[in-house]
Amino acid sequence: MVDIATRVWNHKWKIDPIVRSLIDTDFYKLLMCQSVFRNKPDTEVRFSLINRTKSVPLAQLIDEGELREQLDHIRSLSLARGESTWLRGNTFYGKRQMFRPDFMEWFEALRLPAYHLERVGDQYELTFEGKWPEVMMWEIPALAVLMELRGRAVLHDMGRFELQVLYARAMTKLWQKVERLRGVPELRIADFGTRRRHSFLWQDWCVQAMVEGLGPNFVGTSNCLIAKNRDLEAIGTNAHELPMVYAALARDDAALAQAPYDVLADWHEEHDGNLRIILPDTYGTEGFLKRAPDWLAGWTGIRIDSGDPATGAEVAIDWWKSRGEDPRQKLIIFSDGLDEEKILELHARFKGRARVSFGWGTLLTNDFRGLTQDDRLAPFSLVCKAVSANGKPTVKLSDNPNKAMGPAEEIARYKRVFRVGDQEAQDILV
Amino acid sequence: MVDIATRVWNHKWKIDPIVRSLIDTDFYKLLMCQSVFRNKPDTEVRFSLINRTKSVPLAQLIDEGELREQLDHIRSLSLARGESTWLRGNTFYGKRQMFRPDFMEWFEALRLPAYHLERVGDQYELTFEGKWPEVMMWEIPALAVLMELRGRAVLHDMGRFELQVLYARAMTKLWQKVERLRGVPELRIADFGTRRRHSFLWQDWCVQAMVEGLGPNFVGTSNCLIAKNRDLEAIGTNAHELPMVYAALARDDAALAQAPYDVLADWHEEHDGNLRIILPDTYGTEGFLKRAPDWLAGWTGIRIDSGDPATGAEVAIDWWKSRGEDPRQKLIIFSDGLDEEKILELHARFKGRARVSFGWGTLLTNDFRGLTQDDRLAPFSLVCKAVSANGKPTVKLSDNPNKAMGPAEEIARYKRVFRVGDQEAQDILV
Repeated sequence: MVDIATRVWNHKWKIDPIVRSLIDTDFYKLLMCQSVFRNKPDTEVRFSLINRTKSVPLAQLIDEGELREQLDHIRSLSLARGESTWLRGNTFYGKRQMFRPDFMEWFEALRLPAYHLERVGDQYELTFEGKWPEVMMWEIPALAVLMELRGRAVLHDMGRFELQVLYARAMTKLWQKVERLRGVPELRIADFGTRRRHSFLWQDWCVQAMVEGLGPNFVGTSNCLIAKNRDLEAIGTNAHELPMVYAALARDDAALAQAPYDVLADWHEEHDGNLRIILPDTYGTEGFLKRAPDWLAGWTGIRIDSGDPATGAEVAIDWWKSRGEDPRQKLIIFSDGLDEEKILELHARFKGRARVSFGWGTLLTNDFRGLTQDDRLAPFSLVCKAVSANGKPTVKLSDNPNKAMGPAEEIARYKRVFRVGDQEAQDILV
Repeated sequence: MVDIATRVWNHKWKIDPIVRSLIDTDFYKLLMCQSVFRNKPDTEVRFSLINRTKSVPLAQLIDEGELREQLDHIRSLSLARGESTWLRGNTFYGKRQMFRPDFMEWFEALRLPAYHLERVGDQYELTFEGKWPEVMMWEIPALAVLMELRGRAVLHDMGRFELQVLYARAMTKLWQKVERLRGVPELRIADFGTRRRHSFLWQDWCVQAMVEGLGPNFVGTSNCLIAKNRDLEAIGTNAHELPMVYAALARDDAALAQAPYDVLADWHEEHDGNLRIILPDTYGTEGFLKRAPDWLAGWTGIRIDSGDPATGAEVAIDWWKSRGEDPRQKLIIFSDGLDEEKILELHARFKGRARVSFGWGTLLTNDFRGLTQDDRLAPFSLVCKAVSANGKPTVKLSDNPNKAMGPAEEIARYKRVFRVGDQEAQDILV
C-alpha cells in the first residue's frame, strides 16, 4: 500500500533540512552555553569554519545556494516545547534542573544570529559574529551541514542500487567494529560523533547499533536530540572554546597564565561529579597540570583530546599520584581520533589503573573510508572555532602542533607564557 | 507517518505466505507442463522431495504445522487474471501465443493436488501423487517453501540489528559478484535461482541488482512472477523430468534407449529457435550425443547441467563439428553450481568458440555462506523429483554419479542400455 499522504508531504518540502532542531547538537554546547550565559554573556566573539583538508574542494562540491538554504533553515529554528520540557525535566548525570530557569527562558527565545558566507577559491569562508552564547550555538550545526552537503554531493551521482549497497557496506563495517567491542568487560563508550557525522539518519542508526550491540557498555550520546528521541543519556562536559576565549580576554600575561584555571573555577562553582572533567591540553597538558591548583586534582577526571593518548593518560596518572590522589578513582576520557582498535588498546592498557571511558567520534558516525570510488566519502578535518573575542585573536596550542591555531606571534607569546617546549607532531586524520 | 491501514492489513494475515502465486515458478515448468498436457496428460506420477544434505535436520528446524499451512496456502492458489493475461499476451523468445488456448483454460482451472507429509527422524518425507501435469507444478513451490522456512527458523532467533546487518552483508556480497561481472563484454547471464532461493523478496532483490548492475548482459529470469512484475524476459526450456518419465514409461530396453529422443521429438514439433536446447546428461552426455539423430544437431544449443562443465562443452563442440555444424552458431548454456568465478572462467574459455550463456542459480539467490554463526543459512541440496511414472521407478544417471537417482538394479539396467562407463564424481554443493 502506498502511503499517499506521506508521499505528498515529502514533496511539499522545498529542501531536505539537515538540522531540524536546536538540540541536534552536542550536550556540552548547552552546558558551556549556560556557563557563558552566566559568566561572560556580553563577550563579542567571532567563530570561523575551517576546512583543514584542503584536498576536499567544498565550494566545488557544494552549491552555495543550497548551503545558504540549509543555514537559513537553521536560523528559522527555535526550541520546541517538547525539547524544552526534556531539558527542564531530565536528570543529567544524576542531577535535576541542570539547566536553570533563566537560561531556559533565554534558550527558548533564541534564534541563531546571522552568518557570513563567502566563496574563496575552492573553499567557503563561513563566519559567525555576535554575543558569545548565541554565536557558539552555530558550531555543531554548521559542521554537520557542511559534512552532510558534501556527502549528498557525492551520493547524487550514484544509482539506486549503488546507494543501497553503499549503506549495506557501511552497516557491515560498523557492525564488525561493534562485534569486536561487544563482550569486552567494563568497556564504556559514548557517541561523540555529531559534528562530523555522515548524516543525521546515519548517526541515529549508529547509535541504535551501539545500543543493540554493546548494551550497557554503550553509555550514551553527546547528541541531545538523539538522546531525547532514543531515551539515552546525554554525555559531555566542556571544550577548548572556554579557555580559548577566556585567554583572549586576558589583559596581560599574568592574567593569560591564569585564564585556563579561571574557566575551571567558574565551572567548579556550577558543576560537580561527572561534569568535573579537566580538558588540560589547550595550552599544553604538562605545564597545565604542573601549575594547577590543588582543588583541580580533586576533580572527577580528565579528557585526553590531543597528542599521544597513552602518554597523556600516563601524565595524568602520575599527576594524580603526585597530588596524593588515587588514579583508580579517577576517570580518563579518551576522545581524539578513536577507532575500535585504538579503543581496545587503550582499554587494555589502562583498565584497573583508572576508570576509563571513550568518546567515539568521526570513525563511529562517518567511517565511509574505502566505500566509494576515489574515497570521495571519506571523512575530513573540518572545525568551527572561536577565532576572536572582543576583537582579540584566540589561540590554541594543544598537545599536537598540527592542531595549533591562531596568529603566529600570538602562538609564540602563548608558548612563552605557558612554557610549552617541543611537541611531538601527530597526523590529524579527522 | 505510520500507515495504519498497512499495519492493520499485515496483522490480518494468519501466516506470511511464502508462495503467493502459481506463476512464482520456473518458466520451463510451464513449457514442460504444456508439452506433458498435450503428449502424456494421463500419466500417473509420484514426485518426492529429497534433502541430499542430511546434516540439515529439516524436521527439527521447521514446525510441521507451519509447513502444512504453507503447503495448504499453495493449494488455495489459482491463476490470477493478470497472470493469465500475461501468459496469453506475452511474447516469449519472440513467439506470440506460446501457450495454447486449451492449455491456458486448463491452467486457469488448476488447483494443486494433495500432498503427503510425514516426519521420518529429522527429515520430512513430502510426496505428491496424481496426473503428471498437475503434480509437476508442485516441484518449485515445494522447494521454495522448505528453503525459506528453514531460513525463517534460523532468522527467528536473531535481533533486529543482526538481521539488518545480515542483509547488509548479503547485499554487499552479491554486489561484489556483480561488480566482478559488470563490464565483461558479451556476457549473458540469467537468474535460475527460484527453487533454492533464500526467500522470494531476496530473489526479487537479486534480480533487480542484476538488472541495475549488468544492464543488457542480464538477459532475464526463470521466475515467471518476477519476470512479469519487473517486465523482464522469462527464461527456460526443459528439464530432466521429461526424459526420466518417458524412460520409466518405456516398455522394453529398446524403447528405453529411444526414450530421450522421443522427448525431444515431441519438443521439436512444439518449439523452435531458442527453445530447442538439448539437455543431454540424463543418461550420460557422450552416449546420448553419439547416438543422437541428425536433426538434433540442428538444434540451437545445449545445456550443461552436470559433470565438469568445460569438459561437457568441449564434448558438445566436438559433436557439432562431427555433424558438420558450426559451433560458433550454437548456444551453450551452463547451469550447474555456478558462481561468478566459474562464470568468468567458462566465459573466457568458450567465448568466440560458441555462443555462451549462464543460468545462475543458488549462489545468485541464496549465497548466505559465511554470514551467520555456524553457517546456519548456507544453502543446501534439496531436490524434488519424479520418482515413479505409472508405477514404474524413474532413473537419472547424469554426468556426475553423485547425482544419480533410482533403485540400484534400475540404475544398473540404465547404465547397460545407455552404455555408460566410468564417470568422474563431482561434489554437489547445491
